[in-house]
Amino acid sequence: MRNFKLTLQYEGARYQGWQRQESTDNTIQGKLELLLSKMCGQKIEIQGSGRTDAGVHAMAQIANFHADTDKTTEEILDYMNQYLPEDIVVCAVEEVPERFHSRLNAKGKVYRYQIINSKIPSVFDRRYAYQIEEKLDIEAMRRAADYLEGTHDFQSFTSAKKGKKSTIRTIESIQIEEQGEKLVLTYTGNGFLYHMVRILTGTLIEVGLDKRKPEDMAAILDAKDRKEAGCLVPAKGLTLMQVQYEGENKCKKR
Amino acid sequence: MRNFKLTLQYEGARYQGWQRQESTDNTIQGKLELLLSKMCGQKIEIQGSGRTDAGVHAMAQIANFHADTDKTTEEILDYMNQYLPEDIVVCAVEEVPERFHSRLNAKGKVYRYQIINSKIPSVFDRRYAYQIEEKLDIEAMRRAADYLEGTHDFQSFTSAKKGKKSTIRTIESIQIEEQGEKLVLTYTGNGFLYHMVRILTGTLIEVGLDKRKPEDMAAILDAKDRKEAGCLVPAKGLTLMQVQYEGENKCKKR
Repeated sequence: MRNFKLTLQYEGARYQGWQRQESTDNTIQGKLELLLSKMCGQKIEIQGSGRTDAGVHAMAQIANFHADTDKTTEEILDYMNQYLPEDIVVCAVEEVPERFHSRLNAKGKVYRYQIINSKIPSVFDRRYAYQIEEKLDIEAMRRAADYLEGTHDFQSFTSAKKGKKSTIRTIESIQIEEQGEKLVLTYTGNGFLYHMVRILTGTLIEVGLDKRKPEDMAAILDAKDRKEAGCLVPAKGLTLMQVQYEGENKCKKR
Repeated sequence: MRNFKLTLQYEGARYQGWQRQESTDNTIQGKLELLLSKMCGQKIEIQGSGRTDAGVHAMAQIANFHADTDKTTEEILDYMNQYLPEDIVVCAVEEVPERFHSRLNAKGKVYRYQIINSKIPSVFDRRYAYQIEEKLDIEAMRRAADYLEGTHDFQSFTSAKKGKKSTIRTIESIQIEEQGEKLVLTYTGNGFLYHMVRILTGTLIEVGLDKRKPEDMAAILDAKDRKEAGCLVPAKGLTLMQVQYEGENKCKKR
């Protein structure tokens, strides 16, 4: 069996998210598996680097699948882009060693959350950004973000119920960049819990609106209680930008 | 009667273009006039800086209308954005002197045409760019663009029939910029004929594909014959970026 790594771009709006569902499937994973199974004449299962929720976009989601096929990577790429709907695109297909696993081998991820901070909506960003009319205090948001960087228990910042799995994660950086009336938040970390980026963003927005103080972040982290953090912001502002692998180049067969 | 200047953003995909039509109206101008007439309780006519064709977008189209209303510019802006569909946005409303005319006073325009020069489609640019799979020779396109800059009779580069109206225009500059796999052509000039930017772009693409030579541009201009120029590229790649007015600040009432 050969192992193929896919780099995928998609617009989340029309889908129920990444993860295949049992019935009435309208998921990214489901669409890809259906197409690949048809192409290979065998049932194909795809492993994504992680799930993206309904409405969340991806600039470069990574997935892999094992298949018995004679097709070249270029033939797979062409076939997939020919039959996929225009809101899902395969950017690259690479053959990787048997052991490569898109989720287990992922060392880090980069997510972007876009805010239009203006009373005027944006026609061209409306599908990819969340509008906040009131002026945000960006310096306060940056000071709050400083508290969230580093290794913490992010139980307060996930919609997932408390369970056995660790909720400790490391956020390498939270960059907050002004691009005209657009505010771009870039989160880089070793992994993110269910809804984590959207709750972090919701909490930072509340700081920007002076509903919370930057220094409140420490207490929110300590509480380990979802109720202490801010609101969940809409999915459409969120995009998975990059999945990072260690020694990535070594995985490629030349 | 007060005179109001509007700065408008719109995505052209769902519309038959700017200009109001007699029947089955689905135009930008038609939508705006309907809404303003309702707001003012009187028939309002809007004058645009120029028509944009079906499918063409605008980042900052300028229009003006005269109305008998007590509303402030801010009230007009809020009212319009409340009722307009999400693919049309009013970015600004200003009160201007009686004599201001968005078309007659326009001194120049800036248009952008976006090309995705890649075998891989782009999910996020698919509505605003035209995909060309074969690698374009950008240096050749730039040399060809040099021939087109300046004051010329652009009869060869318009779909409009030969008539009494002058087809002489001045193109101040054609910038061709690479942004990753996106090629952005920016046209600045004192005015553009019907389909002119899309035919110029189609011709430059043919140079980029080595179907024509840069130095052929001189003969195409001289021919004053539409058949000599290149193909009309799709509307979706085109965006009206800016309309320029002389002494613009003087028009604003403070």
